[in-house]
Amino acid sequence: MNSSNNQNETVRKVIDAAKNGQMFLLYDSEGREGETDLTVPATSITPADVKWMRKDGGGLICTAIDFRASNNFGLPFMADVLKEASRTNNSLKSIVEQSGDLEYDTRSSFSLWVNHRDTRTGIPDNDRSLTINKLGEAVQKTINGEDFDFGAEFRSPGHVAILKAAEGEVNKRMGQTELSIAIANMSGITPAMVVCEMLDDNNGKALSKDDAMEYARKHNLVFVEGKDILEAYRSWNF
Amino acid sequence: MNSSNNQNETVRKVIDAAKNGQMFLLYDSEGREGETDLTVPATSITPADVKWMRKDGGGLICTAIDFRASNNFGLPFMADVLKEASRTNNSLKSIVEQSGDLEYDTRSSFSLWVNHRDTRTGIPDNDRSLTINKLGEAVQKTINGEDFDFGAEFRSPGHVAILKAAEGEVNKRMGQTELSIAIANMSGITPAMVVCEMLDDNNGKALSKDDAMEYARKHNLVFVEGKDILEAYRSWNF
Repeated sequence: MNSSNNQNETVRKVIDAAKNGQMFLLYDSEGREGETDLTVPATSITPADVKWMRKDGGGLICTAIDFRASNNFGLPFMADVLKEASRTNNSLKSIVEQSGDLEYDTRSSFSLWVNHRDTRTGIPDNDRSLTINKLGEAVQKTINGEDFDFGAEFRSPGHVAILKAAEGEVNKRMGQTELSIAIANMSGITPAMVVCEMLDDNNGKALSKDDAMEYARKHNLVFVEGKDILEAYRSWNF
Repeated sequence: MNSSNNQNETVRKVIDAAKNGQMFLLYDSEGREGETDLTVPATSITPADVKWMRKDGGGLICTAIDFRASNNFGLPFMADVLKEASRTNNSLKSIVEQSGDLEYDTRSSFSLWVNHRDTRTGIPDNDRSLTINKLGEAVQKTINGEDFDFGAEFRSPGHVAILKAAEGEVNKRMGQTELSIAIANMSGITPAMVVCEMLDDNNGKALSKDDAMEYARKHNLVFVEGKDILEAYRSWNF
């Protein structure tokens, strides 16, 4: 069976964008965050893309990594790090995110914040782009079965957030983290994707779905939403 | 002795700005990061200020908190959290920042990333402004000697980084974290200050000192540097 029967046109276009290292817009769903993320593959991000994300997105510039690679690197969820540290710091017990804390999901995806060791302060566009490119390379190496010493290349804390996809990925959680990794998997590219929330400059809120779609039209970018990704992914012939 | 003899004009102006809840520009020094941060008191930040920081700054929007308040809340340095967690996660041992890792200082200021519990996703301007305002309120309460349950109001991970000032503050470390807290202390305002690095839109680097000074002139904002703050602080009559 060829899976192409199950792809709609938008999914086909977003896969092409991902393969070509181009920016696209990824909306989760009405029932969840209701936010759109500017999204681009980690291996192809440039300093100009980082600038684009901070200027036109405005949220946090994060790198989503698939569950297997995260585990190979020993990258934990930040909530689990804080729980572990709360054994000797009692104050942390009540601060760390608990199941039920979030309105839109059962847990956040945050892992560590990192800088590549070749960066200086870590924040300028050149630095963040380098950190993210190297995260992409690292993910590809570990997926290829190569030994990779994560701590030899990256240090934490830093200026790029790593988002760790849920085990079971898009079948278990439908955040931009898992959705972007599903797109990477369908595209056959490295499962390390950069996401940045798009904010509204006029009302203090996230950019609405309609305005994000309008932005995509105006800039000739693909806009895709979670339900279409999930449908295509579940029938995908890997 | 009246300390005013020891204040230069710029320090007097930045103290006025801080007292009035106005944005100012804070440069550390040539020998350190060489970066300028847009800076504003946490208690007076608005959603428009958050937008301003993300549009014209472009770095991470962080809240610096003085050492005493951080300790009252039980807020650790992130590097110490990671060290503690590395007792059961061996991979973290090589990732966590060590003394000597940074070119510009002995350690980074990062503590936890938090959201106020009344935010939804935590990232829109309204959400980040609320989280930061509430951090300012919390710092003021604990400094007033009130009991304050930090975990009842904030959860981690989140979208606003807390920077914890070094013990000994500006006498021990001259980053924007400690410099902004020194300004708060001299101004008599709550020692919780929002900082965001200013990036250059054209060359992938941090905004140069000259360009930051030009931005300040153009927008009629105070530009102040670390050495002037330190000099004024050391002779300040608290």
